[in-house]
Order: sequence, then C-alpha cells, then structure tokens
Amino acid sequence: MDRRSFIVKSGALGVGAAAATLAAPAIAKGNVTWRMVTTWPKNFPGLGVGAQRLADRITAASGGRLTVQVYSAGELVPPLQSLDAVIDGTAEMSHGAAYYWQNKSPALSFFTGVPYGMTSRELTAWVRYMGGQEIWDEIYDQFGVQGFLSGDTGTQAGGWFRNELTGVDSVKGLRFRTPGLGGRVWEKLGATVTNLAAGEIFQALQSGTLDAAEFVGPYNDLALGFYQVAKNYYFPSFVEPGLATELVVDKKKYQELPADLQALIRDVAQAEYDQVASDFYANDPRALKTLVNDHGVNVRQFPEEILKAGADAAKEVMTSLRDSGDALVKKTAESFVESLNIVRTRSRDTDGAFVQAREKYFDI
Amino acid sequence: MDRRSFIVKSGALGVGAAAATLAAPAIAKGNVTWRMVTTWPKNFPGLGVGAQRLADRITAASGGRLTVQVYSAGELVPPLQSLDAVIDGTAEMSHGAAYYWQNKSPALSFFTGVPYGMTSRELTAWVRYMGGQEIWDEIYDQFGVQGFLSGDTGTQAGGWFRNELTGVDSVKGLRFRTPGLGGRVWEKLGATVTNLAAGEIFQALQSGTLDAAEFVGPYNDLALGFYQVAKNYYFPSFVEPGLATELVVDKKKYQELPADLQALIRDVAQAEYDQVASDFYANDPRALKTLVNDHGVNVRQFPEEILKAGADAAKEVMTSLRDSGDALVKKTAESFVESLNIVRTRSRDTDGAFVQAREKYFDI
Repeated sequence: MDRRSFIVKSGALGVGAAAATLAAPAIAKGNVTWRMVTTWPKNFPGLGVGAQRLADRITAASGGRLTVQVYSAGELVPPLQSLDAVIDGTAEMSHGAAYYWQNKSPALSFFTGVPYGMTSRELTAWVRYMGGQEIWDEIYDQFGVQGFLSGDTGTQAGGWFRNELTGVDSVKGLRFRTPGLGGRVWEKLGATVTNLAAGEIFQALQSGTLDAAEFVGPYNDLALGFYQVAKNYYFPSFVEPGLATELVVDKKKYQELPADLQALIRDVAQAEYDQVASDFYANDPRALKTLVNDHGVNVRQFPEEILKAGADAAKEVMTSLRDSGDALVKKTAESFVESLNIVRTRSRDTDGAFVQAREKYFDI
Repeated sequence: MDRRSFIVKSGALGVGAAAATLAAPAIAKGNVTWRMVTTWPKNFPGLGVGAQRLADRITAASGGRLTVQVYSAGELVPPLQSLDAVIDGTAEMSHGAAYYWQNKSPALSFFTGVPYGMTSRELTAWVRYMGGQEIWDEIYDQFGVQGFLSGDTGTQAGGWFRNELTGVDSVKGLRFRTPGLGGRVWEKLGATVTNLAAGEIFQALQSGTLDAAEFVGPYNDLALGFYQVAKNYYFPSFVEPGLATELVVDKKKYQELPADLQALIRDVAQAEYDQVASDFYANDPRALKTLVNDHGVNVRQFPEEILKAGADAAKEVMTSLRDSGDALVKKTAESFVESLNIVRTRSRDTDGAFVQAREKYFDI
C-alpha cells in the first residue's frame, strides 16, 4: 500500500462540499453518532471491508447507543487527511495505517510494520504485553488521539516482476513500484523506485514504464490484473512482514464516553484484528490458486542473494531509526528491536519449526 | 493439557454443597448475572487468567447489564463436567477446550487442535471464513449450546525428556506422560503413554516412574519445575500445533439476550482469542530464556526420524476420523483437511518463508 495512491484516486474533488453538508454529530436520547473516516476505498478487500465491519460491530454491540458512520477515502476528507480530521474534530474516528503518518513521527511505522520486522502475531505480543501500546499512547498523546490495532494483512507478497530475478544484479536499475520504508530498502539494492497509484500500476506495467510492482498480496492483487503483464510473482515480502491497521479515536471524546462504551470500542477493535487477519489467511491462498491455475502465474521465491542484501538494507533503515535524535523515535525503535529479538525465537523454534516439519513429512 | 489432571486436582469434594448454596441467576433492574464454569485452575497462566479476563470484559463492556461470575475448576462442578453444567442449566457459560468433550463427538478435537493440524492463525481462517464455525454449530446444536473460540496457546513445546533422543529407537518403551490424540500418536511410535495429573508429573519424573512428560509450553511448564529432573526440552510439539480454548454458552439463553449483548459476547470472545495468543507469544520465549539461562535447560529439536514417524502416525489418526461412520465427524474432518491444505500453503510460502529468511540474514 502507499500514500500517493489514495491522493491520486480520491483527490480533493468535492470534499469540501461533502463535509459542509454534514450535520454535527447527532446526540439524541443519549444516543451518539460518530464519524469514522478511512484511508481505504469503499469495499477494498480485507481492509476497507474491515473498517465498515468494525463500525457496524460497534453500532450493534452498543445497541445503537454509539452509531458509527463510515466515510470511505475521499468521501469526507482526502484519505491522507484522516488522522488530521480526527485531530481537528471533523471526525471522531479514523481507520487506516499508522505508517501513513510518518511525517508526524517516524516511530509510527513500527505500529504498522517495517522491513524485516514483526509478523502479525509478534506485533500483538509487543503491543499488548511488551510495552508497545504504552509507547504508542505516548506518541499519540501529543496529538490528542488514542490508537488501537484493528487488523493485519499478515506477511505480504514480494511483488510482480516481468522478468525472473537471478540475483542482486537483476535489481539494478529495475523500475519498481514499491512505496515507504520498503521502497527505501529496494532503492539500496539498486532499484529505481517509483510510487504510482493503485489504478495506474497496471498501465505502467503494460506500457513498459514499470518493470515490476508490489501492492498487497493475492487477495488484493488478483483484482488489479497485474498477472496479465508480469507473470513472476515473488514471495515473501521481506519489507512488509505484516501490515497492521489502526483505529484512531479522539482521546478526549473517547474518555468522555461511559466506561462500557470505552471498553466496547477497545474490544471490538481487538476482535477485528483477529477477523481481518483470518480473512487474509483464508482468502490469499484461494486467490493465489486462481492466479496459478487460471492465469498461469509463476510463483517464485526471491534468490538468497536478494534476501541477504535486503536484510542488510533493512538493518540500515532500522538502525537509523534507533539512532534518531528524536527521543521517542529512539525509544520506540529500541523497544521494538528488543522485543523482536525475544519473540522471533518462538516464531523460529516453535511455530515456524512446526510448519517446516509439517511441510516435510505430513501429506494428506 | 489433559482431562485426568483436572479430575485428580479438583475432585468432587464439596462440589454438591457449593452448588446448593448458590442462588439462581439474579435478574434485577434488567441486569443479569451469569455463571461461567471453567476447566482451568484459578490463575492458571494464559488460560485460567484468560477465562477470568473474558468474564470481566463482558461485565465491563455491558456496563454490568450482564455480569459474569467465574467458577474455577471444581468450585461449582468438577472441571470435566463444565460442558454438562451448561447443558443441564447449572451454569450459563463454560470456558475450556472442545477436545475435552470427545466423548460427545470426536469431531470436537478439530476445534481445539489435532496432531500435525492447524496453527492458531490457520484455525481462525477455517473457523471464520472456510465453514468451520457452521460445522461446529451443527455439532453443538445437538446439545443446545453455542461455541466461540476464546484463546489459543500457539504451537506448544514437544516435552521434557530425561535422555537425549537419537531416533525412533529412543522412543520404544519410553514412559511418556502425554494425553489425548497426541498420546495416540506417541503410542504408535512405541512410547508407553500415561496420563498423570499436572501436580503428579514432577514426582513421577523424579522417582523414575516417568522418562518424559509434556504439558503446555515454557510459560506454564516453568512453574512446574520439570527442568530440575529432565534437562532436554524438545521443540516443537507436532501433536499440538495450536490449542484453542472455547467459550460455550447455553444457546437458548443466549438467543433470549438482547441483540447487543449477543454481539458483545461474540466480540469479546474473539478479542480474547487475540489476547491469549499474544500472552503466550510474549511470555513463552521469556520463560524459555529463564529456563535456559537460570536452569541450564537444553533446548533441542526432535530428530527428523521422529518428526517423520509422527507425521505418519498423525495421518493414520486424522484419516480414521475422516473415515468415521458418524456423518458429522466425517464432514468435519473433510472440511478441516481440505482447508488445511489451502491455508498451509500461505504459512509455508509467505509467513513461514519470511521467518526463515529473517533467521538466515537479519541480525540486529
């Protein structure tokens, strides 16, 4: 995912007008209606659908005492103004990804996912049991908002490549669409990184302006048709080992809610973390099957040389954040790295070792 | 975990008396108090703590409209009568693991975890997006109850062994404490399987009655002191790749609740699935560090020969369930195997491949 795609897709067209016609939050008979702006297009698989479902679940579990009205990307504000909309009071809630707000603090990347960082399960261990949430609160307190994890894509796909990759040499000069910190990693490997909007990628691949592109994973990528041009689909993404979404709430308004509604918002956001991850885990492999069987896609793993060079580059990126002059960025990176080095041992020796044994020996 | 440990630990002592002194569920000013019986000892790390937290979260998010009172193993009924307590109306809720009720249907094992089966993330994909919940509902409808996933330990540890294992030969005649379907797998490998209560394992190891024992994982095992006798701690458990807990609710009473409280129970149970898994993911590796650094435990991986023989045995167990004369057991096993063969590809090629690449190349 990326920042610019939303700007280009949604633009600012009619946004002011739409906002102007909306009434202030209705408070009647003790019932409240809150606005949730999102960074996702309407019905965007997994993520946009998840934002809508989260809103509906809060409405249902509160018996309508707190009704949440969803505004997809651009309906109320441009997608990348979602957090600002909560800060300035235009909306009470935002559903997006913390790394979209790197301009407010580079530390926020850690709460979405960073190159060679944490998987979806490792991230919740850090956030819920190893001090992550407390640091996140410290960052968001500066802006008067409260963040909750609200979903995760799991490890993403590495991208679509027109030609097969044989090593780092095949990356040199490769015109690759890949945004964010992941883009910085690929740049260090020699790629010419560009960041096109989702709707522009297909054409750029077809016309030859792009040699490669990555977006999310099979579930989202299938719909965009990249397989028609680039037949080599590489796994896994080592730059997006997980992508957590967030629910952000105006902290003052949140704290003014009755305690039961505060608890309910927190609980439903956490339920949605599980729901969204389950959605991707079920639907990514089904979409990949379609890509392989119906569209002749070649599923490949990155050459070891690229995985290694990517790790070196990711280490530079993570170390530069840990060496930041901003005390809170430094603190976040230190906590993240320390926790990563603990939880990764479980992933490797327990769950990961099981998955490997099962692949080797269990055929049914 | 196992069935007998709870019977032995909690017994039936005073259970009838305790039950007799309890008032009927209080309904006053529209508020309801429900009883939740559990199969876990009070404050049992991860699982017992999770049952209590789940109850407290329902109470909090409902603003006390639905107060859930927890009865630990043996406080109201013996732990392995928890489901029956809901069926006969003694309690409205039960927190335990579906595989404890294999005598009601062997199909229930699939909703907890089976040898060489699904990991915690794969299980939710099946249950929430691939038909698992619908089949589970069909099974539990026969008993008038509703099941929800409510936690998961993640992949467990393989067990504590006095002597190092060199191959299948070292398993022959080994007196090994390991219960359930996992026990059946180890039996096929030549072990003499016994099932002692948690509180009896340590002494049996020390006296030489047992050569080996498995319980849960580092977080739970550390407290039981096995490391004092058996220094070889093997990973991963290929017979418990995940252990999901369940919340069971009296279905008629559930459906009589207002819709918002029904939604809230479902949402909180799902939030707890994430919470419990995060707890184990954060605290297992910390406990393992203590076991290695402070208690000189040797962490080992099972020899390939044992992993392979275990897979063959697990396949026999799973196939026998799929060939069951009970149509619902057969249907459950077929759905599970079909879904497993889809989701395992994502675990292997995406999340699993990432974890392997990170271990090989990313050192920070």
